[in-house]
Amino acid sequence: MRIYMDNAATTFPKAPGVGEAVKSYIDNIGVNVKRGTYSTAFSAGETVLETREMICNLFNFHNTDNVVFTMNITQSMNFLIKEILKSGDHCIVSSMEHNAVMRPLSQLVNKKVEFSRVKCDKFGRLDPKDIKKHIKYNTRAVIMTHASNVCGTILPLYQIGKVCKDENLLFIVDSAQTAGVCDIDFNDMNADAIAFTGHKGLLGPQGTGGFILSEKLSKTIESLICGGTGSDSKSEYQPEYMPDKFEPGTMNLPGIFGLHRALKYISEIGIENIRNEELSLASRFLEGVLNMKNISIAGLSTIQGRTAVVSLDFGKKDNGEVSYLLDKDYGIMTRCGLHCAPSAHKTLGTFPHGTVRFSFSHYNTDKEVNYVLESIHKISKRRGIE
Amino acid sequence: MRIYMDNAATTFPKAPGVGEAVKSYIDNIGVNVKRGTYSTAFSAGETVLETREMICNLFNFHNTDNVVFTMNITQSMNFLIKEILKSGDHCIVSSMEHNAVMRPLSQLVNKKVEFSRVKCDKFGRLDPKDIKKHIKYNTRAVIMTHASNVCGTILPLYQIGKVCKDENLLFIVDSAQTAGVCDIDFNDMNADAIAFTGHKGLLGPQGTGGFILSEKLSKTIESLICGGTGSDSKSEYQPEYMPDKFEPGTMNLPGIFGLHRALKYISEIGIENIRNEELSLASRFLEGVLNMKNISIAGLSTIQGRTAVVSLDFGKKDNGEVSYLLDKDYGIMTRCGLHCAPSAHKTLGTFPHGTVRFSFSHYNTDKEVNYVLESIHKISKRRGIE
Repeated sequence: MRIYMDNAATTFPKAPGVGEAVKSYIDNIGVNVKRGTYSTAFSAGETVLETREMICNLFNFHNTDNVVFTMNITQSMNFLIKEILKSGDHCIVSSMEHNAVMRPLSQLVNKKVEFSRVKCDKFGRLDPKDIKKHIKYNTRAVIMTHASNVCGTILPLYQIGKVCKDENLLFIVDSAQTAGVCDIDFNDMNADAIAFTGHKGLLGPQGTGGFILSEKLSKTIESLICGGTGSDSKSEYQPEYMPDKFEPGTMNLPGIFGLHRALKYISEIGIENIRNEELSLASRFLEGVLNMKNISIAGLSTIQGRTAVVSLDFGKKDNGEVSYLLDKDYGIMTRCGLHCAPSAHKTLGTFPHGTVRFSFSHYNTDKEVNYVLESIHKISKRRGIE
Repeated sequence: MRIYMDNAATTFPKAPGVGEAVKSYIDNIGVNVKRGTYSTAFSAGETVLETREMICNLFNFHNTDNVVFTMNITQSMNFLIKEILKSGDHCIVSSMEHNAVMRPLSQLVNKKVEFSRVKCDKFGRLDPKDIKKHIKYNTRAVIMTHASNVCGTILPLYQIGKVCKDENLLFIVDSAQTAGVCDIDFNDMNADAIAFTGHKGLLGPQGTGGFILSEKLSKTIESLICGGTGSDSKSEYQPEYMPDKFEPGTMNLPGIFGLHRALKYISEIGIENIRNEELSLASRFLEGVLNMKNISIAGLSTIQGRTAVVSLDFGKKDNGEVSYLLDKDYGIMTRCGLHCAPSAHKTLGTFPHGTVRFSFSHYNTDKEVNYVLESIHKISKRRGIE
């Protein structure tokens, strides 16, 4: 028996038919888009366009031209952060950010970009009022994750977006943990850009991701990556029109064909249903863990205000050893450590030892959760791994 | 009948089993690497390592740690160009470069980076002695394509590498059109970095590419993209060790599994055999075209010093119309226009009208070439498309 509980890293299995859609593209279509005059190149282009449309539907966004594909959300965040923030600018982040945000920002500090980190409480919750306290004369943007990849706590982005609107700040959203699971409305959130990944909640293949961008930002920021776009080829300058401006080079078309299939599946099932199934599993898991001794939950202990990502701290036992035994002896795949989010772990009080993270997809079952709880219970009773 | 002759854009078909390898990864493995403690994560990591090894073998390179994967070679060139060249630096390029080089450089001009363009002759040939004429006090690097994506002319990179060594310049190579077809030796070329794409001569899926990097450069340049690497997670700074330094975020693992399969195939077949087959087709094609009136070859008219990429200029006829008719009436897929390389077309005397490009893979056949020649002949006799 193999039980996959590392869905916050990448979901498995993917939506039905994703592998087949990718294979079929590679075997039967294979061509490039935006470059050939032949008919199959146009038909591949249509699938890419449909994928942009489905991304628009997902985020209640209006403009397919402003849907940009990248290799992953880390690239997306770098594209946004590094082109929006310039020398002398200040931005605000939460203390729950992933290193996909913190590492680019740390690098930019050398280029005289400043950031302030709004402290969340020990459950990872952020008070929107705290944003205002950190606004300075040179604050240009708020950059924030929608939910913690460590403990699943959802940040109040709709309220924070309102603050950004009132204070005339750009609002850049990292939806890595919520796209395909939570309702995300570009307009209601007052977002200027939302970065997404294709291989987590969207159930598509790794190698896909992107961002959506406001009209204003699409016109004012440069592209971090320049090159051939198959358009305006007489010019040695990056075109200014979207999405070409941000999509030089050959796209990951097999990946986009897979993402296309996945997004279709999600729209058929409905993200509310997916979320409810995941939270039902998380609820069962949280209740089971609450009854166990010497195990603490990092973050919220009920399903209110969270995604189905649960981090456990085994206290006196070595978390790495617990994760290893879960795999070796029980076939349960988890992820231990700091989850590329040291700031989040500091906030939750689990730094530097980290946690064992269990993250559910709607493909997990009640039976699997029961088995995992039993396995945790058995391991917690073992001696010699303290 | 569908005949694909746009292999310089992306090869089709891919190596046998590439689609299946990608699908099998998505359906059966699916996990992330460098992040999970569970055993399948390690086994996926092994395939990635083997792929790095095969890239090393391809370029006679010694260090798997310094093989970096990206989404495409445009990203690779941006990573290299933008982190190597800083304000006040000067670099030298040929007049045959693709916009994957020219557009990043044009962008950097705003940041006070300068470049000189060494003029090639009307066949796209570069005289290595001309490099020296452009060296200035602040010249830091020579950045050059190994072969033109427009006309196939190979540039004398081994000799240019020697100039770079003598003059203490960095040598950055764009192997987009030659990897998997020409012999490329990192050491003999005195290269400091070679960028590659996975989906052209390497016969792997789109969405793959990368670069290899000298020890010295890997230590001195920063990464254009920062973020979680699954390593050193307690730190908010990008790790300094390779390849993690340049590979933040989730890799395109399905793509790398496909590239792995493709590289295995290439090493079995041998690139010399692939090259000979391609050049034999190109030779047949060139000879056929030479006999036709009102059609000129942009670049070299024999197979000496070139790859199997042939650009034709139909003179009085509209090249776009010819390319369209080849597809519509004869099922032949070509690519017309400027091929994201305006400078190359200016050099060849085909700017701004461009050419119709025929690019062969070893999967093409003599029979196909004959059919294409007949079709060109028929179109060239038609009236009304002048």
